[in-house]
Formats: sequence, C-alpha cells, structure tokens
Amino acid sequence: MKSSSEDTPPMAPQLLSSRNFKSLFDSVDTFLFDCDGVIWKGEKLIDGVAQTLDLIRSKDEIFSSSFAAAMYLKVNNFHKDKKVYVIGGEGILEELQIAGFTGLGGPEDGEKRAQWKSNSLFEHDKSVGAVVVGLDPNINYYKLQYGTLCVRENPGCLFIATNRDAVGHMTDLQEWPGAGCMVAAMCGSTEREPIVVGKPSTFMMDFLLQKFGTETSRMCMVGDRLDTDILFGQNAGCKTLLVLTGVTSESNLLKEGNEIEPDYYTSTVSDMMKLMESP
Amino acid sequence: MKSSSEDTPPMAPQLLSSRNFKSLFDSVDTFLFDCDGVIWKGEKLIDGVAQTLDLIRSKDEIFSSSFAAAMYLKVNNFHKDKKVYVIGGEGILEELQIAGFTGLGGPEDGEKRAQWKSNSLFEHDKSVGAVVVGLDPNINYYKLQYGTLCVRENPGCLFIATNRDAVGHMTDLQEWPGAGCMVAAMCGSTEREPIVVGKPSTFMMDFLLQKFGTETSRMCMVGDRLDTDILFGQNAGCKTLLVLTGVTSESNLLKEGNEIEPDYYTSTVSDMMKLMESP
Repeated sequence: MKSSSEDTPPMAPQLLSSRNFKSLFDSVDTFLFDCDGVIWKGEKLIDGVAQTLDLIRSKDEIFSSSFAAAMYLKVNNFHKDKKVYVIGGEGILEELQIAGFTGLGGPEDGEKRAQWKSNSLFEHDKSVGAVVVGLDPNINYYKLQYGTLCVRENPGCLFIATNRDAVGHMTDLQEWPGAGCMVAAMCGSTEREPIVVGKPSTFMMDFLLQKFGTETSRMCMVGDRLDTDILFGQNAGCKTLLVLTGVTSESNLLKEGNEIEPDYYTSTVSDMMKLMESP
Repeated sequence: MKSSSEDTPPMAPQLLSSRNFKSLFDSVDTFLFDCDGVIWKGEKLIDGVAQTLDLIRSKDEIFSSSFAAAMYLKVNNFHKDKKVYVIGGEGILEELQIAGFTGLGGPEDGEKRAQWKSNSLFEHDKSVGAVVVGLDPNINYYKLQYGTLCVRENPGCLFIATNRDAVGHMTDLQEWPGAGCMVAAMCGSTEREPIVVGKPSTFMMDFLLQKFGTETSRMCMVGDRLDTDILFGQNAGCKTLLVLTGVTSESNLLKEGNEIEPDYYTSTVSDMMKLMESP
C-alpha cells in the first residue's frame, strides 16, 4: 500500500514552475487572494507581496477579500451621503475610501472608552448606514457600543462581516481569535445576523460574473488553507493555488489521506513574480 | 372597553405595602436577585441596596446571579488546584475567592495588549480549568485570546457564562451591550457553546433545591424586566417582585395588553428595608 502514495495520482497538485505558471496565467483573467497567511501574516506583509501584486495587477484583475465590503456597498447602491462605521483594521477604511465612501471608527477608536455615567448619552452618528466588522486586534467596548447603536437604532443600517473565521495564524506559533470573534460579539448585542461578503460567501464571484462577465473557471483562488480557501475555490469552480506561508504545510498537502488538492502550489505568493519575470 | 383596564383583575400585581410584604416575607425562604437594574445600574449601586441586602440576609437566604458561577464550580467539584480565568468584572473574582477558588484575569487584564510578533508565544496558564465570561466593559483582544487559548488548549476546560443578555440599561438613557456580547465573542473564537449559570438557566433553583431542599414556591425572584426576570421566575414556580429601577416602568407594567404580571412590585429594592423596619 505504501507505494500508492508514491505514485503521482492524475490530479495531484503541481508545484508551480515557469512552465505550468504560463498555462495558469493564460487561462485566468482574475486572481482572488485570501489575505491572512497569503498577503500578510499577523502585522507583517509577506516578503515581496507588494511588488508581486503590482506586477499581476498590470496584467490581470486581482481582488482581495478586504475589497469585498466596499464592493458590496457599491453593488447595492449604498448612498454616498451615508457613513460606514468600521470595527476592524485600517485596510477596510482604505478600501471604503477608494470606493468613495466615508468610513469612521477603526483604529482611531481603539483607545476610546465608554462611560456608564448617569444622564450622559453615548452619542452615535445617525447617518451611519452600515457597520462593517472584520478582524480587530483593538476591539473594545466603545466600538461594540457604537456599532450596536448604529445597527439597532439607525433605520435600515446594514451589518456586514468581512468573514467569520473563528481563528487565524496571526503569529507563527499559535492561533488567535479571528474576525468571527468580533462578528459574533456584534451578533450577541444586536441579535442580528450579518451579511458575510468574504469567504465562504460567493458574493465576490457573483459580483465579478455580473460586472465583468468573468466566469469562475477563469478565476484563480489563491489561499493558504486547504479546508477553507482551496475548498471554497474548488466549490465555486475556480482554479486554485495554495501558498505555504500560512496554515497548510507541504507535508500536510502531500500526506496520504488528504482529499483537498489545489491545482497548483508554491511556497510563497512572491514566487509568482519570479516566475513571471523568468524568461 | 376602556373600563376593563380600570377594573382590577384577580391576579393583578400588588404594589408592595407593609401588610402584603409581611405575607410575602413569611412565605419565602430565599430571595433571588437579578443584578443589573436591581442591585446596580451601570457602575452605580442602587441607593440603599447594601443595607437592604444586609437586613434581608440576616433573616433569609439571598442569592444574586453573580454567585452562580462560583456555585456551579463548587457543585461540580471543580478542583481547588485549578484556576479560573475571568472575562468580566471584579464581582465574579470576589465570588470565586469567597468560594475558595483562584481567579485570574478580570479588570487587571483590561490594559494588557496582545502582540502579533513573529516567534513570540502568547503564554497562558495551563492550570486554568474554567473560563467564566460575564459583562465586561473592559473587553479587549488580550482577554479574548487568553480565554480562547484556555478553552481550546487546556484539556477539559469549562466555558461558563453568567448570562447571555444581549443588552442592559447600564445608564438611564440607552441600552448597552450586555454579557451576551462577550459570551458570543468567545463562542465565535472557540466554536464552543457555554454553560449558562444565570438566567434563563435554572441552575440556581436546582442548586438550592438540591442543597437546601428549598422548593421554588418558597423562593422570590426580584427583577427589573417583565420579559426576562419575571417571566423566568414565574416559569420556575417562584414568587416574583418587580422593581422599577431598571427596564420596566410602572406604566409598562400596568398598561393594557401586558400579559406578564409579577405578584408584587415596588419602586426600588430598598423599599423592602423600609417595609421590614416599619412597625
């Protein structure tokens, strides 16, 4: 039986090389990138990622899951006069701004404190029409109260989650609470369920299909986890590329019994740049 | 039809008086107090509450929902060598200490920060055998990571919630995220459901019945909300006393159409002291 694991099965994942990368690149119009473990890890960008994304962007469309919330608002004609309260990182605020929306909250509310004082009202902006919740290492009671008041008291206010990952590998050595922790906190206080725009929602694929007519067969999902990113990409009908900078190691990928196999794998996303530049 | 609301229905709630208070007091061995809106409101104790509780305690058993977590551990023979990590207020730590358990976390972790640094391990105490989560105005990512690591990585670690109230009236003017918000955050990151020891769990009633043989008919639930406290007390078979220092106003109590009626009501818990002292 041992020999079977040494035979190359017909659909085995291929290590990305200058040859097969060309065929992947030619067959794809759009790359979808998971962020945590692919673009960044904890607070650190993966080496070479900025140049790699610039290079790919010059030839193809790319989308990261952090764009999804801003795109959701755009697709749904969210009024530019309304504001968006953010429980999450600077990245969400940047994406909102690029899309022409006014965001507030985010990191600048990380040091604020809510005071339970008699007769003092916790003020919130009545023009907030959406609360976007993502991974927030500076989560606090102030933000939770602000977001809760918007969702509960501003008529029609949307409650949007970038994703519901329970934990992520914010450092090499252990798992940490993911966006699903902050999203759940808001569910607990608002008694509402969010609109999820990132994985495992297919909002991005549907958006790309509707907006650009791009079929999922001409998209490539790039991720670091077999059981979320790669499975999600496969289920959506995308090509899939696993990078080894995050959760899944090469030995986990290749071990006998693993049933989720990407089309391609490579050690880091910046290998794509090297392969594009190689003759 | 108007006249019907002016007729006194047979089971109408009675305003507490020196006469009916004596009959209530004689028919009850144990008072169960909701805390928020009854014992305190936001960060402020209700006027006269300390003396009132002292006086009642001298004649009867009293239990507040903040005792419940410590009692749950006691009833379940939680080992004294193990520790309890607290996401919540000083009150939980005090109850744990009184019950002989070693608590950690709570307010002193309110200023701590988790660092996503490569190769730096977030250390947690492997002897933590329970995480107790309640209302925490100083909730932060450090505590959520600490609690999550304990629940996910310490074998057999219990995950206990004091209650799952979505919001509470921490100030007079508006609602604020309640313990249900912090509990949900921990559910989101641990992918576990908590053991709820306060309302609407009947743990306290079961405990009192088993420990002291006290029937619920000889308990009085004191609370500030018809739809949670009073309904809960009624469903458990307790007598019920509504105080008007919290969510439910007298006009809400007496308005036509209200179907949840306590046995008694009074403006504040300290009325009990005045009535006990009156001749």
